[in-house]
Amino acid sequence: MTETKPLILISNDDGISAPGLRVLVEEMMTLGEVIVVAPDKPQSAMGHAITVTAPLRLKRSYIFKDVVAYECSGTPADCVKLALDKVCDRRPNIMVSGINHGPNYSINVIYSGTMSAAVEAAVDGVQAIGFSLCDYSNEADFSHTREYIRKIVSNILEQPLPYGTLLNVNFPKTDTIKGIRICRQASAKYSENFMQREDPSGNTYYWMTGKFINMEADDNDTDLWAVDNDYISIVPTKFDLTSHGVIQHLKLMF
Amino acid sequence: MTETKPLILISNDDGISAPGLRVLVEEMMTLGEVIVVAPDKPQSAMGHAITVTAPLRLKRSYIFKDVVAYECSGTPADCVKLALDKVCDRRPNIMVSGINHGPNYSINVIYSGTMSAAVEAAVDGVQAIGFSLCDYSNEADFSHTREYIRKIVSNILEQPLPYGTLLNVNFPKTDTIKGIRICRQASAKYSENFMQREDPSGNTYYWMTGKFINMEADDNDTDLWAVDNDYISIVPTKFDLTSHGVIQHLKLMF
Repeated sequence: MTETKPLILISNDDGISAPGLRVLVEEMMTLGEVIVVAPDKPQSAMGHAITVTAPLRLKRSYIFKDVVAYECSGTPADCVKLALDKVCDRRPNIMVSGINHGPNYSINVIYSGTMSAAVEAAVDGVQAIGFSLCDYSNEADFSHTREYIRKIVSNILEQPLPYGTLLNVNFPKTDTIKGIRICRQASAKYSENFMQREDPSGNTYYWMTGKFINMEADDNDTDLWAVDNDYISIVPTKFDLTSHGVIQHLKLMF
Repeated sequence: MTETKPLILISNDDGISAPGLRVLVEEMMTLGEVIVVAPDKPQSAMGHAITVTAPLRLKRSYIFKDVVAYECSGTPADCVKLALDKVCDRRPNIMVSGINHGPNYSINVIYSGTMSAAVEAAVDGVQAIGFSLCDYSNEADFSHTREYIRKIVSNILEQPLPYGTLLNVNFPKTDTIKGIRICRQASAKYSENFMQREDPSGNTYYWMTGKFINMEADDNDTDLWAVDNDYISIVPTKFDLTSHGVIQHLKLMF
């Protein structure tokens, strides 16, 4: 009897040529059969955007040796939808996203294309994990993430998560990792400060900048604390956004 | 002593010319001082996308009589960020989004630009409500939503929500509304089925279509049930995506 290798679907938001994606592909090839469907251009901060009013294109890519890969004209969420409907000939055992160049901890989770790709898979009932490294550089060193990624994916393949939950994994930049911490999402926000400039025609334009503000700096059970203290953070993440604790309060108001 | 009227910030994802936005502006003018910052083009299904790699434009709009309004080149979330940083000269008392042409109940909340605008305000600590009507038509009849919108916004202005929570309000298409139901987000998903076609050059393209599947059709405490049964659904919605119930389970695994 031949054992079927697990099918692992991979996407990201930095685009098919991103170094972080390549690391993830290499590591997943040690664990199963890999299919890649990734955006044909960078799609950072695309949140959970999907393309409903325009057609999507899918093009075979040969940038990974011995891997079926496609580049897609859409968003990260589009990539996963299209992969599940048109590319995969069987249900993936797991979908992994990343490795993102830059953190997706705390409130970044709602802006993250990396996480939205993973959420998309999870909504469809596929096990899913988003991986991010706290280093925006295109030359980022991912070597310290490799063994942990294998371990985390292997664990979830062995012990799948209940429907409705996926993982948001963030790696600190340091290569002296202290271990893994299971965390909650830190409460934080950006204090916006748009740069205001004039273009050569004298018209005003704005560039988004923002200062990240951790509103729970004293708490040691958050993803922000973990990564700041050289731990890998794993946050079990869900897409039921109901604030259940407020339902009773509202029932009295309406 | 003159009483300052509440400042009400309005945005949407269907764009500044959408009929649903006009209804919301008219109703909010009865409750306070209104500022509109809305996308200059439709931005449906943009999720929580933000624009970090391109400049944003803001242009004064005169389509609403006696209202300060701007159209913005960015996403709904961009509109709110820019409004709070550059347009409003004081903190809004509330931010309202919509009225969306089409439902944002259940899993639609994660794709919705309408809701992402409201979430953006809520993350920044501003009271926020997203309004949607279950009718995609540009000619949709919003008249039955007016009195309820005034009531819901007035209630929240009087009794603000705790930080971390906003409201997701969906109106049924019917004008024989039975009342308001405080609900949880129904578990549902889209069964994707991309239409596959060939363009005039013989190249394949894909159009997203999808069948909406309610996975909790028997439960009467969900937003889907409410709207299907002619109630207005209000779901208290949060942006802490932590699946708190799974943390202990994961601690045993890692």
